[in-house]
Parts: sequence; structure tokens; C-alpha cells
Amino acid sequence: MATNGLPTLSAIHLLQQLRALTENEDGAQRVAWTDTWLKAREWFVKQLTGLPLEQHRDAAGNNWFTLRGESEKTLILGSHLDSVPNGGWLDGALGVCTGLEVLSRIARRYNGKPPVTVRLVDWADEEGARFGRSLFGSSAFAGTQTIAEDRVRTDKDGITLEAALARVGVDMEKIGDAQQERKHAAAYLELHIEQGPVLEDLGLPLGVVLGTKGVERHAITFHGQEAHSGSTPMGVRRDALAACAKLALEIRTIADRHKDAVCTMGSVKTFPGIVTAVVGRCEATLDQRDLDAEVLAAMYHEAQEASRLFAEQERCTVEWSRIWNIEPLPFHPELIALCEQAILETAGTVHRLPSGPLHDAAEVSRAGIPTVMMFVQSLKGISHNKIEDTKLEHLQLAVDAMDRLAEKTIAWIAS
Amino acid sequence: MATNGLPTLSAIHLLQQLRALTENEDGAQRVAWTDTWLKAREWFVKQLTGLPLEQHRDAAGNNWFTLRGESEKTLILGSHLDSVPNGGWLDGALGVCTGLEVLSRIARRYNGKPPVTVRLVDWADEEGARFGRSLFGSSAFAGTQTIAEDRVRTDKDGITLEAALARVGVDMEKIGDAQQERKHAAAYLELHIEQGPVLEDLGLPLGVVLGTKGVERHAITFHGQEAHSGSTPMGVRRDALAACAKLALEIRTIADRHKDAVCTMGSVKTFPGIVTAVVGRCEATLDQRDLDAEVLAAMYHEAQEASRLFAEQERCTVEWSRIWNIEPLPFHPELIALCEQAILETAGTVHRLPSGPLHDAAEVSRAGIPTVMMFVQSLKGISHNKIEDTKLEHLQLAVDAMDRLAEKTIAWIAS
Repeated sequence: MATNGLPTLSAIHLLQQLRALTENEDGAQRVAWTDTWLKAREWFVKQLTGLPLEQHRDAAGNNWFTLRGESEKTLILGSHLDSVPNGGWLDGALGVCTGLEVLSRIARRYNGKPPVTVRLVDWADEEGARFGRSLFGSSAFAGTQTIAEDRVRTDKDGITLEAALARVGVDMEKIGDAQQERKHAAAYLELHIEQGPVLEDLGLPLGVVLGTKGVERHAITFHGQEAHSGSTPMGVRRDALAACAKLALEIRTIADRHKDAVCTMGSVKTFPGIVTAVVGRCEATLDQRDLDAEVLAAMYHEAQEASRLFAEQERCTVEWSRIWNIEPLPFHPELIALCEQAILETAGTVHRLPSGPLHDAAEVSRAGIPTVMMFVQSLKGISHNKIEDTKLEHLQLAVDAMDRLAEKTIAWIAS
Repeated sequence: MATNGLPTLSAIHLLQQLRALTENEDGAQRVAWTDTWLKAREWFVKQLTGLPLEQHRDAAGNNWFTLRGESEKTLILGSHLDSVPNGGWLDGALGVCTGLEVLSRIARRYNGKPPVTVRLVDWADEEGARFGRSLFGSSAFAGTQTIAEDRVRTDKDGITLEAALARVGVDMEKIGDAQQERKHAAAYLELHIEQGPVLEDLGLPLGVVLGTKGVERHAITFHGQEAHSGSTPMGVRRDALAACAKLALEIRTIADRHKDAVCTMGSVKTFPGIVTAVVGRCEATLDQRDLDAEVLAAMYHEAQEASRLFAEQERCTVEWSRIWNIEPLPFHPELIALCEQAILETAGTVHRLPSGPLHDAAEVSRAGIPTVMMFVQSLKGISHNKIEDTKLEHLQLAVDAMDRLAEKTIAWIAS
């Protein structure tokens, strides 16, 4: 390996600097399209000094950093700098900062010219925290974005997504042009914190991700009859909350029936929602996930059947409306194998697990680019919160394993 | 009986006029302290023309109409002209309009001078729709008002109750002076729609009310752990909604255990309340009612115990906070007997039932004045809604029965 004048950056050091720059007493505030996010990106670009990287922003606001290689075939490393409001220091930022350290190591190792081109991408608005549209930049890259629907999205102050994008120089009409970045892409690697308790429970630092679970996401409304809490005997009530409560409990039985599957009722709203009235209408959300498309379909069917039974028992009616869904996206088998080897060589042990949360990697995989993700242990499985954390020694193992994985992938692409 | 020049008014005709004056396409809009309510009261005073009644407003904004009798001992008839927003045409207004017809009948019958004094009161702000403080005027009359707490109440536009009262000439500091109206009060009678389905289910027009049920009203908060819906295995979740859903179902078992008791969970709020997060905190309200103080206490205890068990099962914690409570207020046994006779003589059949909803009668009864209420059937048990209705023939029976009851009560007071 060459040792030349090129600097090697430290991902952990970068993360600590970014944290100081963009965190307040409630946590990270790098919400996409806001000033704090722009400040984070501006700071990030300054870290490139001395590295042989080209930088540009694509039509959807994704930031690209390119290390040109002997071949135009390209390895992409990526994640996102944006956070949820009051978020953690690692979610997204870990992947981007590690990507920069790995890029700097590759540049140094190959004296500025690796066998294949290597790029780092900082995806725009992975979280969708402000406009409710996750994976914004990566879906524009993959060509799965829906401009018509997204244009009318507004934040809590009534500002449209279109106006927020225009403010930072992104034209909603042209975000599809980000698909040009797919040219020559041969593989995509993403490191992320697990955001769940599995690796911690197993006592393992790192895991290889088999794919992202498919999601069925629905709004469910039970219609009963609003009635006075004092004058309406129990026997004649049509209590929409009771039907919904039964479903809130039944979805756990449904999930348990299908190993590793998850079902979540995250929101319940009651109408009129006052202490003196039987609930006449109850609106709930259901989020179901599994890596197996057949399991996902079965769970969706079972929840629908159960809801109809409970509605009937409570003399209510029920309506379902799909909020969103995505099929399970298994990652590339050869990259999974390379990732597993890289982890084994670095940490000595490895675990295979699916990803429940979605990631930009899902969109890249949908676009047909061979993809794999690596997870590092999350303490207590907590993310999207200022207490989100990972042991420093695990972060260091993750950076080292990603460097190994990138090296193996460069060889795989080149061969 | 004398037949003289005094007019006899028709309660049903008055109700129809009031409806035309104060209803829009969404229902009655006589919310207390608003212009429409003031308009309704102004219209009502005009209906007294030709009747030998004195009118004045007391320190809490209650409107009094006095027919002086041979004795200062006083029979009071009462209800309220105020409605909820988008309310019905009968809730409250029926009692006031019937009171005026009965007053006119008594004046005519006794040639303007009955054996005892008879008064009609239109209580101010029974509904508490705008400031969340029910039974305002009658509690000032009873001396159970809480000025300190009520002064800071605001409506949805941030206007304080104190300011709204000042606008119509009521001084918050002086509302306790309304207690002076209790002088000489010997009995209180109130007619109201049932607001429940019991009389309709029995096919009966009228019922005698045994008292108002006691109420235990609590806010219950389950604390679990917010977690990602995709990455958190079912087995490690601490789902606050699950604990709350169990309680939403258990309160029905608790109510069924105690005949005629009711338990209602009217509001559930989930936090963060988003489709992608296990519920970390769930806030619910519980309203429990019964006419028997021991049953009420037992139900409260049982719900608390159940909530603690469910919290433990879900590895959550639970907190209770009392919103409000009132003891059961049984009405006066002799007046119940008189009311039963009056109904039997008018309609041929009668039913005894407790009142689940609270009424101004509860406050009057708390003040130690012998009290009874009469209920007339509500179609479908619906109130607080523009479709609230009662058959005209039942309304006529109610007016006739109230006249008989007033006559019997005058004799009872005089003896």
C-alpha cells in the first residue's frame, strides 16, 4: 500500500464535530431543507480539503463526491446527513462520515487512483421528517419518485415541498434528472446503526443486512355511534374505540404467528374525543413489515379479516385505506457474502438480519444496482432520539469493516 | 278554576319559534355568553307580555321570572336556554319553555295569585360548551362554584370566562351573590329530554328521575417506550397503546359487573402518534357513573387495579389523575312519589330511572332544596346534535305532566 501526502480522515472525529455543530439540548436538528441541514452540508464539503474528490449536487439535491478510478465502473457508498427533529448523532451521519473516511483511505491506498471509480453520496431528505416523504433523494435517483403527489406536500407551517426545494435551488420539475447519476453504478454499500435491539441482545457489534422488509401501511377507521357517556347503557353502545382496541391487541397475535414479522398500531385518534362521549369514530394506523412477501400479504389479509370481525361484534363498520406500501427488497447475494466476510475478518463474529426500517439502500436496490448494508449495534435499540448511541469501539469496528467491504467490492467490480 | 284575561302560552309553539330564531343548518347555536344566546334570552323575555311576572337577572347571570303567591314559600321550575354548538332544539330549552307554559297556566288558574310563590329560572351556561365549566349558574346558586379555578378558563380563542361574563354585565367576583335566590325555596322541578334510549326502548313517553348518577372522571396515562416500528421485535416492545387497549375493553366488564353502571373511555391520544413508532405514551380519559356511591367507588378501584395489571403485563407504568368527580345525588323521595303520580295520571304508565347526564337539578339538590326531575323520551337517545328530537305528542304529555306535578308540589309546599 502506498503512503503518500493524502490525508486520512477519522469518521468518529467528523461525527463528533458534526454533533457539536448541529445538536442542541434536544438532540440533532439537521432536518432536510432547513438552515441547520444546509450548515451541516457546507461544513461537510469543507472536510474534503486536500482530497482528490470532485463534488457536485444532482437535480434532486443529493450531494456527490467522486474519486475517479482507472475504470468508469463505480462503487457508491452512501447515507444521509439529514436527521429527524430532536434526533440522534449517528442515524445517517455515521454512513456519510464513514464513507468519507473510507474514501480518504482508498485515495491514500491507491495514490489517488483506485481501479474503479468510487463515489460517496449524501442523499437528500432520507427521513421525510418535515414533509412526510421519506427517501426523497434516493427515490429520485431510482426513478420511483411521484412528483404530482409530492409537490402538494406541506410542512406544519403550510410551506410546500416545492417552495422549500426552490429555496435551496432544487427545481421540483427536474428531480428526475438525478437518475443520470446511476450511469456506471456497479455496487452500493451503506453502513447504518441498527436502530433496534437485535445485535445488542446477541452481544455482537456488526451484522450483515439481508434486505429491507416490505411494508404495508394503512389507515383504518372504525365508525360507531357517538353517544352520551352518562345516558347510554353499555348494552346499546356502538363503541368505535372498543373495536379498535381489539385490533390493537390482535395485531400482536398476527405478528407472532409469523416469525420475525412486526405489526404496529402507532396512532389512534378518537372522535369526538371528549371525556363525556362514547367514541363515534376511531382512526388508527397500522404498519406491518416482513422480509417475505407472502408473509406480508398474509398478515395484511389477517388484519383486515380481524378488523371486520371486531367491527361486526361492536356493531360498527370499518374502512381501510392504504397509506403506502413497498415490497420486500432482498440485497445482492454476492455482496451479502462479501459483507459477511468483511465483518468476520474485522470482528470475528457476524449475524445476518433483515432491516425493519427503510433505508436509501432500498431505493438503490429497486433501481437494480447490487446493494448491501451493514448494521452496527445500537445501544438499547434507540434511535430518532438524542439518547441514540453506539459504543466508540463498535463505531471503529464498523469503519474498519466498511473499509474491508469496500476493498472487496472494488475487487469484485473490477473482476 | 278561574278563567280570566291572562294568556296561556304553548311550550311547543315557543320551542318552534326559538328553533327558527337560533338554529342554523348545523343545529342550535345558543352557546352561553354568545350573541345568539343573548338573542334567545331577549326573545324569551318578550314572551312574558301580559303575564303578572317579575323578571330579574341574578349575580351569576341566571334569569328569574317570579309569580308572587299568597306565601313567600317558593316552588322553582328551571332549566337552561343555552345549548352546545350544533346542538338540538330541546336540550334545556324544553324545560324553560315548558316552565313558562306551566307558569302561565298557574297564573290563569289562580287568577294571578297562587297559594305559594312560583318562579321559573333559566340557568346560565349549563352546558359549559365554551369554557368547559358545566352547571355554571346553578353551582353559583348552590354555592359550589370555584371562582379561582373558573376565572382562568379560556375559550378556543383565548378569551377568559371572566372577560366573557364582564361583556354581558356579570362580575366574576360577585357570582356567589346568586345564593340569595335560595331564600324561601321549598322545591325544585326540572323537565328534560332523557338523552338516552331507555324510555324509547320501553315504549314509554315519560319517566321519573331518581337522582343524578355520581361521576368519577379521570385522566390515565400509560408510559411505555417509543420504538421504531420496523426494527423493534414484538417481544421487546413496551407498547403503551397495548396496555391502554386492554383497559378500554376491561372497563366494559367492570360496568357489566355492576347493574346499570356505565364506564366510558372517550378519548385516547397516542405519542408520538406516528405510523412508524411503537406508542411510547398513551393518554386516555375514563368516565364512570352510578347512582350508588359504593358501586362508583368499587368501579373506580377495579379500573385502577386493572390498569396497574395491564401496565405490568406490558412493562409499562400508569398514572392516574382525577379530572373531576361528583357524588350521586338522589332526588327527594316525596317529590319522586308526586312526579310518579303526575306521570301516571297523564300517561297511564311510568318508569323510574337514574340520570346519567348531570343537570342543574343536581346542584339545586346539593344545596338542600327538595328536587325532582322528569324525563321525556328522546328519539334514538340522541342529543347534543341537530337530529335530537322527541315526538310532539310526547312533548305535549310532558307539559301536561309537569303542570300536574307543579300543582301537586304547590299543594305539598302549602301544606
